[in-house]
This record gives sequence, C-alpha cells and structure tokens, in this order.
Amino acid sequence: MSLSGVHVIMPTPFDGAGKLDLESLHTLTHFLIEKGANGLVVLGVMGEASKLGEAEQEAIIRETVQAAQARVPVFVGSGAGGTDLAIQKSARAMELGASGLLVAPPPVQNDTVIFNYYQRINDAVGALIILHDYPVSTGILLSVPLVTRLHSELEHVRVIKLEDTPTGPRTSALRKLNPHLSILGGLGGLYMLEELERGANGIMTGFSYPDILQAIYTAYTSGNISLAQKIFYQSCAMMRYEFQPGIGIALRKEVYRRRGAIRNAYVRHPGTQVDETMQKELEQILEFSRLEDLIASLKTGEVSL
Amino acid sequence: MSLSGVHVIMPTPFDGAGKLDLESLHTLTHFLIEKGANGLVVLGVMGEASKLGEAEQEAIIRETVQAAQARVPVFVGSGAGGTDLAIQKSARAMELGASGLLVAPPPVQNDTVIFNYYQRINDAVGALIILHDYPVSTGILLSVPLVTRLHSELEHVRVIKLEDTPTGPRTSALRKLNPHLSILGGLGGLYMLEELERGANGIMTGFSYPDILQAIYTAYTSGNISLAQKIFYQSCAMMRYEFQPGIGIALRKEVYRRRGAIRNAYVRHPGTQVDETMQKELEQILEFSRLEDLIASLKTGEVSL
Amino acid sequence: MSLSGVHVIMPTPFDGAGKLDLESLHTLTHFLIEKGANGLVVLGVMGEASKLGEAEQEAIIRETVQAAQARVPVFVGSGAGGTDLAIQKSARAMELGASGLLVAPPPVQNDTVIFNYYQRINDAVGALIILHDYPVSTGILLSVPLVTRLHSELEHVRVIKLEDTPTGPRTSALRKLNPHLSILGGLGGLYMLEELERGANGIMTGFSYPDILQAIYTAYTSGNISLAQKIFYQSCAMMRYEFQPGIGIALRKEVYRRRGAIRNAYVRHPGTQVDETMQKELEQILEFSRLEDLIASLKTGEVSL
Amino acid sequence: MSLSGVHVIMPTPFDGAGKLDLESLHTLTHFLIEKGANGLVVLGVMGEASKLGEAEQEAIIRETVQAAQARVPVFVGSGAGGTDLAIQKSARAMELGASGLLVAPPPVQNDTVIFNYYQRINDAVGALIILHDYPVSTGILLSVPLVTRLHSELEHVRVIKLEDTPTGPRTSALRKLNPHLSILGGLGGLYMLEELERGANGIMTGFSYPDILQAIYTAYTSGNISLAQKIFYQSCAMMRYEFQPGIGIALRKEVYRRRGAIRNAYVRHPGTQVDETMQKELEQILEFSRLEDLIASLKTGEVSL
Repeated sequence: MSLSGVHVIMPTPFDGAGKLDLESLHTLTHFLIEKGANGLVVLGVMGEASKLGEAEQEAIIRETVQAAQARVPVFVGSGAGGTDLAIQKSARAMELGASGLLVAPPPVQNDTVIFNYYQRINDAVGALIILHDYPVSTGILLSVPLVTRLHSELEHVRVIKLEDTPTGPRTSALRKLNPHLSILGGLGGLYMLEELERGANGIMTGFSYPDILQAIYTAYTSGNISLAQKIFYQSCAMMRYEFQPGIGIALRKEVYRRRGAIRNAYVRHPGTQVDETMQKELEQILEFSRLEDLIASLKTGEVSL
Repeated sequence: MSLSGVHVIMPTPFDGAGKLDLESLHTLTHFLIEKGANGLVVLGVMGEASKLGEAEQEAIIRETVQAAQARVPVFVGSGAGGTDLAIQKSARAMELGASGLLVAPPPVQNDTVIFNYYQRINDAVGALIILHDYPVSTGILLSVPLVTRLHSELEHVRVIKLEDTPTGPRTSALRKLNPHLSILGGLGGLYMLEELERGANGIMTGFSYPDILQAIYTAYTSGNISLAQKIFYQSCAMMRYEFQPGIGIALRKEVYRRRGAIRNAYVRHPGTQVDETMQKELEQILEFSRLEDLIASLKTGEVSL
Repeated sequence: MSLSGVHVIMPTPFDGAGKLDLESLHTLTHFLIEKGANGLVVLGVMGEASKLGEAEQEAIIRETVQAAQARVPVFVGSGAGGTDLAIQKSARAMELGASGLLVAPPPVQNDTVIFNYYQRINDAVGALIILHDYPVSTGILLSVPLVTRLHSELEHVRVIKLEDTPTGPRTSALRKLNPHLSILGGLGGLYMLEELERGANGIMTGFSYPDILQAIYTAYTSGNISLAQKIFYQSCAMMRYEFQPGIGIALRKEVYRRRGAIRNAYVRHPGTQVDETMQKELEQILEFSRLEDLIASLKTGEVSL
Repeated sequence: MSLSGVHVIMPTPFDGAGKLDLESLHTLTHFLIEKGANGLVVLGVMGEASKLGEAEQEAIIRETVQAAQARVPVFVGSGAGGTDLAIQKSARAMELGASGLLVAPPPVQNDTVIFNYYQRINDAVGALIILHDYPVSTGILLSVPLVTRLHSELEHVRVIKLEDTPTGPRTSALRKLNPHLSILGGLGGLYMLEELERGANGIMTGFSYPDILQAIYTAYTSGNISLAQKIFYQSCAMMRYEFQPGIGIALRKEVYRRRGAIRNAYVRHPGTQVDETMQKELEQILEFSRLEDLIASLKTGEVSL
C-alpha cells in the first residue's frame, strides 16, 4: 500500500463549553471528502489528542469512519509513551475501522529503541504505519538511515509524514534511497511545491483549504506545473498565517467554522481561542488571497487544470 | 491539609510478559506501609504512567486504595496535556478513593496559563493538589513567584514536590515566602538532608528503601541530627546509583523484587531491564552500604533514634 | 532613543574558502542603505557570530561602521554566556562606533538572573540595548512582565526584537503595557503586517529584500494600508521560503549574491550551502512574486505610496 | 596515544572582583599534579569557558602549560559553533603547548555533519582529540555507532569523555566495539566504580578531590578492588553534593579554596556563589566522609593500596 495525494489532519470539534461535538465531526468529514481529501487523519497533534480521554478518542474514530463511508481511508494517530500502549491503541483503532496508523516515535533518542518500537507495532498490529517525523513536536529525530532501515525491514512501514526542516533536502535524500516509500509533506503545506518537486507523493497536513492543496497536487501531477505554482504561491500568505505556533489550531478551526464545516471554533485549554484581531487578519488575508474565487474558477474551468 | 514525612512514589508492577500484576501491587502497598511510608503516590513518572491505558490506571488506583486500608493517604498523578482531561482524571481518582493529586504543569511555559490550569483543577475538583516541580521531566519551570501565587490564591494547592535543582537554595527561597506550604523533596532522596536543613517538610520520592528515608526523617525531626546524618550519608552510594537517568525505574523494581515486595522487576518498553552487571553492582553497593544491617539495628534499638 | 522602520540583520560575507570578505561587507552595507535600511545589525545569529573569532568580529564592526558613514546606525550582537564578557563585548562594540547593542539573554531561565544580566550591561556600558527575544534560538523565554520590568527600570532598554510566537498577540500585550517601548518584529518578516497592525514600530530581520520591507513599512505608516497589504502578501511566498530553519542563511546570502551585494554565498560549516535545486526554487519564486518588478514600479510611481 | 588514570577538569580562578587570577591558576596546577592528576584540562564547561574572552583563554592555556612543566599533559577545550573556529582555537591551543583537545560536537544533531566536523579538525590540527559526550550540556547525542566510526576512521580521535547516562551500559557497549578507545568517565566521578568495572580507562572530571579519584583508580587497577570500593562508596556523599546542577562550579571552587589551591571561590555571573548554608553543608559532609583522614591513612600506608 502506498499513499499519495492530499490527506487531511483533522481538528476535533468541540462546542462552546468544550464538549466533544460529534455532529460537527460528521459534517467536517463530509466537507473534507467533498473538497477532495484523499485520506483523513484523526487524533494527531492538530486533533488535540493529548487533551482527549480514551472514550472520546474512540468516539472520534468511530464517527469519522462511519461518516467517511469508505470513500477515503481514515488514519489514526496511535503513538504512545509505551510500546504496549501504542500497540493497544493501534489495534483498537483498526478494530474501529481505521485504514492505518500515524505513529509518533517513542520518547527516547536511540535508533535501536526506535526501531524496536516500530517493529513491535508492525508485527503485532499488521496495519499500515505512517512514520511521524516531526521533531519540533515529538522531540525525536528520525535520521535518514533509520527511516530507510524502518522502511526496508518492516513490511507495514510504507509512508512518512515528513516534517523535519528543511523538508526539501530531506525529501530528496529519502527519495533517493527509498524509491517506494510514500513521502508526504506536512507543516501546513508551507513547502508543498518544493516537496513535490523533490519527489514527495503528496501531503498530510491540517491546512484548512484541502481543496487548494488538492488543486495544487492535481495540477502538479497532471503536468500543469505553472498552474500548481500559481495556486501555491497565491496560497502562501494564508498558509504562513495559519501555521503559527501556539495559535494554529484555533485559526484552522475558525476557518472551518466560516466554511460551514463545524459549528464552533473552540479550542480546549491550555490552547488559545481566536481573538477579534485575528478574525480581522483572517478576513484580510482571505480577501486578498482570493482562495474562494480561485476554487470557484477552478471548478468552472475558467482556470483549467 | 499539610503533608510531612515520607511519601513513596510507587512503581507499577508487571509480570514477565508486561501484564499488570495487581497482586504485586497489593503486596507492595503493604510492604511500603509496613516500612513506614506516610503516604503513597501512584501514576507518577516512576509508575510508568505514560505506558498505561485508562483501565489499567483505574485498576492501579483502586487496588492501592483498597490495599492501603486508609492507613495512609494515596495520591494520584493526574496531570494531562489538557486542562479538562486533567480535571476528569483528577475527579475520577478522587471517586476511586484518592486523598489528593500530584499534578504536573501543562506543556506551556507561561505563568498565566499555568495558573489558570491549576485554578480550574482546584475549583472543579476541590481536592488537595501537589505541584509537581520537575523541569527535567515536564519541561516546565515553576518560578518561585508563581509557586507562591498558586499557594496563596488557590485553596487546595498546599504541597510542592520540589525537584528543580539545586534544591537547597530553592527550598530556602520557597520556605521564606511560604511558611505554610508543605515542601517535599524528591530526586531519589539525593539531597534529602540538605532539604530538611533548609525547611523541607519531608520527601516524596521513589527510593526503594523508604524505611531508610523514614529513619532519616524521624531522627532529624526528633532532633537527633547526627544520627540523621549518619544514615543519610551511608545511603548516598545507593541513592546515587538508583537515581540514574534511563535505568532508575528498573533498578528500583529490582530492589523491591529482592526485598520481596513484588514478584517481577519487568519494565515496559521503551524502558530497559536490569542486566547482569547491574545485578552485581546492586549487590556490591547494598553489601557495602549495609542498609539492611542499619535498618535492623535501628529496630532493635542498637542504634537509637 | 527609539527605533522604528526597517533594520537589517546582516549576513557575514565569506569568500569561497570561508575567509572573511570585507570588501563584500562594504558593498553589502552600501547596498542595504541604498535599499532603504533604517539601521543595520552585525553579529546576529544570521551573521554566523558563533563561527567568528574576536578579531573577525571586530573587523566586521569596524568595516560596517565605516561603510555606513553615519548614514544609519549600526547595532552589534553582543550577548554572551557570561555577564562580564557581554559587557566587554558591548563596550568594545561601542568603542568601534556602534550605535547600540542587540543583547541575547543569558543561558539561565530565571527572571532575577536575567534582570541582573541586563542591569549590569545597562549600567556598565550606557548604550542602547535591544532585547533579543527569540526562544527558538536562545532557549530562553522573556515573559511580558519581565520585558516590562526591564524596559521600565533600565534606562537603556528601549527596544525589543520580538520573535516569540505567536508574535501578534505578544506584540499587543507588550504594546498595551509599554507605550514607549520600540517593538520590532523579526522572523524573516513573516508576520510583519500583523505586527504593524498590533502596534509594532517596524522590523529587524534578515529578509534579503529590505527594499520590500521598507515599502511595506512606508505604505503602512503613510496610511496606504491596502498597498502595504498588497506588497506584503505578494512577498509571503518568498519570505516563507527564505525563512527555512537550517538553510535560511544560505538562501539569503544567495539572494544577496544575485542582487550584486556580495560576491559569494558561502556559509561556514556546519552550515549548509545552497544546492542546484534551491537555485531553481529561488528563481521560480522570484519570477512568480515579481518582487523586482514591484520595486521598480514603486520607484517609478507606477504603483504609488 | 591513549589516556588512562585521573584527568582533572580545572576551574578558572578569579579574584573577588571577577578578574582572572593567574597566580591561583599556577598554584592550582601544582596542587593538582601533586595530588596525583595524570592530566589537566582547561577551558571546559567547569572552567567557565563561555564567560572568557580569547585573551583570557590564551592566558589560561599558557599559564597552565608553564606551571605543569611537562609533568602531565594539558588538554584544552576547543569546540566551537563553527568548524573553522574550532580548528583555529585548536591550532592555537597546540601552539601554546597543549597536548590535546577536548572537543564538544557542533550544534547540529546529524551524524554526517558531526563526522565532518571532527574529520576537519582531525585533518587540520593533527592533535589528539577527546570527544566530549555530554548531551545535558551540549544538547547533542553521539550514538555508539557514530563514536565507533569517528574512532576507527579518524586517526586522532583516541579518547571519549563519556557522560551520557546511564554511563555503565554505554561504557560496556563502546568498550565491546572499540577495544583501543580510551574511555574516561566524568559526571563528577559519580559512577566511577561502575565505569571502571565495565572497562573505562579512567576518569576526566572536576571532582575537587583528585587524590581520592587517584586512590580509587590505583586501588582498582592494582587489583585491590575492595579498597577501591571502600574509598569510592565513602566519597559518594561528597561527589553527589558537589555535582549539583547550577551550583557545582561554586562548590568545587570553594573546596579548592579550603584546600589552599586557590585564593577565591568567586564564580562569574550568571553563575552563583556559595552561600553560608552551603558552607555548613560542605563542612558536615567533609567531616562525615573523612576524606582527609582517608587520604592521610592511604599515605602513611595505614590503609594500604
């Protein structure tokens, strides 16, 4: 199994009191598939996984799988501080209908330990494993030789969500050694074009305009590079704004709310909410970037792929 | 409510296959109380909490509370990446019979955010809160002014488990500003004597000889300072060995196994097991330190408190 | 003294063998002033300061001051691991003609220690101090109350180079409490517009198109907000590309080389050089962004400020 | 060239105003050699290297080399943020009479970059390189395979100062793969006995009783293991006290002052001075540990090696 295209790291919708909003999760799932997502990911960092109890986590998996109706695969963040717990969470996710696992490394910077962790999950669960390569968040570096070894020796390690900067040279280095590894970019799409040019197979990220990401991906893979460039560059102002550390989740939820995908942009504490100034900033950027117009024109064929 | 004396951070016993061993948890609880523990703490870092599912965590609380039979309070590690989740875990722990909570800070280095986190838990749960002040593990610093504010403004913040080095000067600084704060040392007991001299009320740590810690504490608070010194200094070789980063949990479990408190010293992956060389090292140190003889002589009054 | 406008963090030019290229430093200085820089900064992170010996550092200060011919102030990065050494470096910089100091905090996360460090430099040197607030690089957080205290109690602490994300809310918080503090953004200009909207006085960063930054700043402060927006959003693709961790210095040097400001884009080891793919990426982005056209049109008044 | 025995990481003596005290450096050098040091190291972390200007650094090397009178080798900490600068500092140290270099890794967690850094220094300077393996201080991990590669491929990489915990298993792992690598422990001597038992060749650390370290080493290598154990365990209370993060340098200087080796225990800001309570703590520990008596009895042969 290999992955390509646009895979969306989903936020977890809450109501204004912070309660899980499964209805919004349902509408969000439909929204994302309609907008062209090739896959969905729940319980990532962006999904506020560390703020969710197990029952909530299971409800989220169940609801998303059900709403997706097998139109696209649903992947589940299932890494843990302990290998047995990661296996247990992974197995449970598969039982609940997941199509694969996004697995962050264990909190130990040691190649042998990291290899054993993934090996045990690989052997025990037997499901697709996506390596989560995001040292800024996990604190753990996955070196190029280690990723290569994981991919070549473990049957189910087929994909990497590559977020160790600079992602361009890293993509080139991994691509060269691993022709069959699915390399998906991340980081809010911020380097998507450069990653595609260096051999990435797509992207797995939380940018709130997956339709834009899909348009870039489709244009690029159809050979219409200049269109891919145009859309990408035009989206950079928004991507950069949305990907701000410490406020990114709130901004994305707010956009989804505005797009009608969820009812409330609430972020659980200690996360922060979007304030009035950010509302205005978002409006300005969206107005300037004309992403909605761009999407419309792509649909009508005014700008053709 | 204030805390003093010796509070033991408990390991979580597993069998050789990594399965939770509740019987050993039962015998361990009895063992620790018999050895003089004034309080017990489950689900701390030393308890491998991040490797345990919720059902396991609840079973551990339940079993420990039951085995303790109200002879000593049982505290529960209940911090979380999200404030609501920390509240939920805290409330559940209290329902299951806990006497209070050991609460690590949220993963955000911002005094206002940290204050709000503890305030919400304080207000929602209404149970004793022990601040976990261990930046090497949590990544978060609690400044002296912040701890002082938390203690003075939040009714249930009565205790700090102080593990930010150097602990001596920090103990003095906090003691000076907070006469009624219960300050408990940690760090495997490594600076226990110096902490007591600077005004600490006791210790909360995982050193596998709580009887030794109790002997030091009792001697010190009875005014027999030289006896406290003798016992403490004699124990330093062992404390230092046991408190090694990356292998400490395994060493402590092995000592508990040798002392008959648990059946198996197994540590869950990615933790490491004790190897043969460490077995020998432990034996040497215990032989030299004569901790068992010391305990025996204290009991028979040969060396009197 | 207050600062506003566009202040450029300068790279240190080397020849192809890594030798300091003072001639290029001279031409670069002229280039930047001509392009509208309101101030220059040498020996910042971007200046590869940690790879330079003292003699090289002094030569750089001397050359830049001389080339600037008092047209704009030259600031010098002069923080150090020890307070005395920071004072010595600061005093030396002032002797060599600097107009002020960019001072990173000491490597100790303690407000009292940080305050004393700046206080001693303030008292001993008596020159303008710019706080360097960049935790990703320095590892040290400067809280809003600490910055406020530093600014209100220390005569020469007049400016902050604010790079703790998210910079928008942080700018608002500091502006509210410190009406006379000069707040300059950084981070490659990535959030410049939002920072200006929240009360920043300008920017101090290494983006290789200071003429663009100046155009944004001038448009914004002249009240032509929509022009500021247009230029800013159009530049985002480039800002984001250039600000990549691990390769940013190389990219900026390459742009300066292409613009004729320096002769060689060499970065000292363990830094990385720009590779062929990056060359192409740069070309693409510049072609699309049409920054050169934009600058030309601003000059001819085709697009007026 | 291989190293064994006891190598002392030297503090840098200052007078009460923080000025470099070269006379004390002279007496300290004589003191350490007289106490049995097999080698000396200046400009390590313990030497407050990051608080010293280049002229001071050179004066320290010169004075120590001169005072040592070729009786023991003098090694110099010469790592830097840039490879060229590290080469320059290393070459200068050798010119001034150093016998080898203690080289911390570059600030980049990438095996290829780290290898190149050491390779360039190896090739350019041609002098003995001691790898500084202390991730708590440098932030960089040197994996067992990387150390093995550095040692086998680079002629002058002959020694590692091993301080990545737990040091016991790490010593075993490196010893097994590298029979000719000189492995020296560190960490204040805290695990010296266990390191020797696992194949370490000695120790390189700042513990202020190098005579004790030498007694342990000599006893151990003479086959008098039980004497080595006795001395080591008896010293643990002191080792643990002295090795406290944030105050260790001050404590060591104070002991050297009391032993008559230097005139003043002053530590440069942002370091901390020893306070009155610490004075008493030191006295208590030294009184209890009877290190002076132990040393005397070893000399008179009362306790024989």
